Amino acid sequence: MERTKKTIIVFSGDLDRALAAFIIANGAAAMGDEVTMFFTFWGLNILRKPDKVPVRKSFLEALFGRMMPRGAGKLGLSRMNFGGLGTAMMKYVMKKKCIASLPELIATAREQGVKLVACTMSMDVMGIRAEELIDGLEFAGVATYLGEADEANVNLFI
Amino acid sequence: MERTKKTIIVFSGDLDRALAAFIIANGAAAMGDEVTMFFTFWGLNILRKPDKVPVRKSFLEALFGRMMPRGAGKLGLSRMNFGGLGTAMMKYVMKKKCIASLPELIATAREQGVKLVACTMSMDVMGIRAEELIDGLEFAGVATYLGEADEANVNLFI
Amino acid sequence: MERTKKTIIVFSGDLDRALAAFIIANGAAAMGDEVTMFFTFWGLNILRKPDKVPVRKSFLEALFGRMMPRGAGKLGLSRMNFGGLGTAMMKYVMKKKCIASLPELIATAREQGVKLVACTMSMDVMGIRAEELIDGLEFAGVATYLGEADEANVNLFI
Repeated sequence: MERTKKTIIVFSGDLDRALAAFIIANGAAAMGDEVTMFFTFWGLNILRKPDKVPVRKSFLEALFGRMMPRGAGKLGLSRMNFGGLGTAMMKYVMKKKCIASLPELIATAREQGVKLVACTMSMDVMGIRAEELIDGLEFAGVATYLGEADEANVNLFI
Repeated sequence: MERTKKTIIVFSGDLDRALAAFIIANGAAAMGDEVTMFFTFWGLNILRKPDKVPVRKSFLEALFGRMMPRGAGKLGLSRMNFGGLGTAMMKYVMKKKCIASLPELIATAREQGVKLVACTMSMDVMGIRAEELIDGLEFAGVATYLGEADEANVNLFI
Repeated sequence: MERTKKTIIVFSGDLDRALAAFIIANGAAAMGDEVTMFFTFWGLNILRKPDKVPVRKSFLEALFGRMMPRGAGKLGLSRMNFGGLGTAMMKYVMKKKCIASLPELIATAREQGVKLVACTMSMDVMGIRAEELIDGLEFAGVATYLGEADEANVNLFI
């Protein structure tokens, strides 16, 4: 089988959509494909470190930062979240059935060499600094995305 | 015109997004394309039989099952649902304008040979059994999706 | 670099998703690509003129029209809208950081020759008339979309 390329724009910061994105990315990487994931807007929250990182922010940036979930462990479902109860139930069921959690899927993606790219323009809008995101990311904009998508045979927006 | 392949991942279980997915799928099939739709997460609800099917479920699986809409006739809009009122209005308008309903679009898709695939991993997470889904489906995972997407020239995530 | 084609289905009428769609479209057009955006369902709201246009509508069509945002300046965020406060904050931050607003992005798209297509079937369902939409659009259905997507190397559903 020839090695092809896949790109996924991860726009959503919902747990369920993030799971779908990483399951597809890891599946493709396991089959030998080159995979690039672009995290933009709410999708950036998936990449945030779980602990507060001391960086200088404007009042609004700090407010945005506080209101958005800090990392893969804090995301909620897009439906049936019920104040976190539905999300907790889903996580419990996944664990019981030995299905990898989102943090585990992210670790696998990195081990498999999936390229994780944070959208710099979204970081600017949301006031998120590079130090607040997990290590090993690349930083780029829409031109880089388009260059990669041109070479890929599957391009998804999640 | 040469026969090409299309794939659509139907992640959403919203009526409006399901309509969009089937309109695209049926359009492509009518133009002679091979079309595969992969139903995952909330999208599985589109394929549920309208009546309760007696299957053994754990407490949480049964709870999930009760909280999620049972089939294409029960889905709500992603916006302006207003406790079902907006959805009822939309359905009424579509009927009056002779636009096919979602159950009709699904029937057409099946007549046209659109391949409907239920994601087995999502079924496992949500506790949905094959007997609870409409007949004529195939069951597969992410590797099958990726194999089909590699052969397709249009791949959407809805 | 060879000139390729991109298509984007803009299904969502959320400000954040509309921004993402136009940033990708404008980026591709700036790199010399042919870009076609298909506006369907809630995405049509992005194209509405800001002022009420006197057209004959049924009661339900008029009701739908009143409940949906009138144009790019009225859209809200898909998350953290908080009754418009979150959206206002986001717009303020974007302006302060000299990031183009959605109306500016739409103007740029038109200047760059991005083809903006309104889905006629969605217009029919939602009771939106051509006169109510901004000028310079094309009007077409799913067959036109599929024809363009077949020629494109990147096709997104947003």
